[in-house]
Amino acid sequence: MAERRQSPMSQALNEARAAAELGEVPVGAVLVDGNGGEILGRAHNRVEALRDPTAHAELLVISAVAQRLGLKRLAGADLYVTLEPCPMCAAAVSFARLRRLYFGAYDPKSGGVEHGPKIFSHSTCHHRPEVVGGLEETQCAALLRTFFAARRPG
Amino acid sequence: MAERRQSPMSQALNEARAAAELGEVPVGAVLVDGNGGEILGRAHNRVEALRDPTAHAELLVISAVAQRLGLKRLAGADLYVTLEPCPMCAAAVSFARLRRLYFGAYDPKSGGVEHGPKIFSHSTCHHRPEVVGGLEETQCAALLRTFFAARRPG
Repeated sequence: MAERRQSPMSQALNEARAAAELGEVPVGAVLVDGNGGEILGRAHNRVEALRDPTAHAELLVISAVAQRLGLKRLAGADLYVTLEPCPMCAAAVSFARLRRLYFGAYDPKSGGVEHGPKIFSHSTCHHRPEVVGGLEETQCAALLRTFFAARRPG
Repeated sequence: MAERRQSPMSQALNEARAAAELGEVPVGAVLVDGNGGEILGRAHNRVEALRDPTAHAELLVISAVAQRLGLKRLAGADLYVTLEPCPMCAAAVSFARLRRLYFGAYDPKSGGVEHGPKIFSHSTCHHRPEVVGGLEETQCAALLRTFFAARRPG
């Protein structure tokens, strides 16, 4: 019951915490039906578990939900992710025709939405979601900071 | 025997032709061990078959080979793909630390290497492969042109 009432970003944060406990970079993502708010799927980063450099939370949840629903375009869906997507995942958001992208922490080093290649800003990007950055940013960023601080040598 | 002597790009073209026969946009990719030339894996676009907007040839072959070898970085590997990768796949090439990217046709509309976000040109891109574009370009482009011409109404 309690879990059902959590906001999508809180649920994405739960996914990120689960990733950290498994030694994965703590990023979590939740895909939501924009009409009605049903959770369509959730995932966390699994690069280490799968030994797969493409196994980012966003890509995993988009791929799994699309395949399960048999829909290569998820036009009414919104993605909540704890970190600004990298260029790979931002492009996947565009291909999936997601309606909105909500992300938590900004990622100046590797992000691809507000930083670097700014995937949605080019005329070669054929679908741009609405983007809301900085949602529950403090918690999302703290989780990443704690994870990397614990792994720093010395 | 004959197949073994084919160049990697010819094998990628075979993958692309197989995709076309299945009604998929004809793009094929082959991953090769840069030292020795062993074929590590091959894939074609499977967006329609899987109903998955992320199921591009490059992403599928990188993911499959990395998972099979248990290596999240494929540092000595070279990718041959019949079309300039989109931003999603270009970023995956970078994450996988591939040594070289050879592509066939240029893609001004949706490419992410020489066009649009030019994934490898940003300081937020942490690994840049060597890039060789235009390999067997005529054949690669013709395959795509024929595919789309046959689907145009009227």
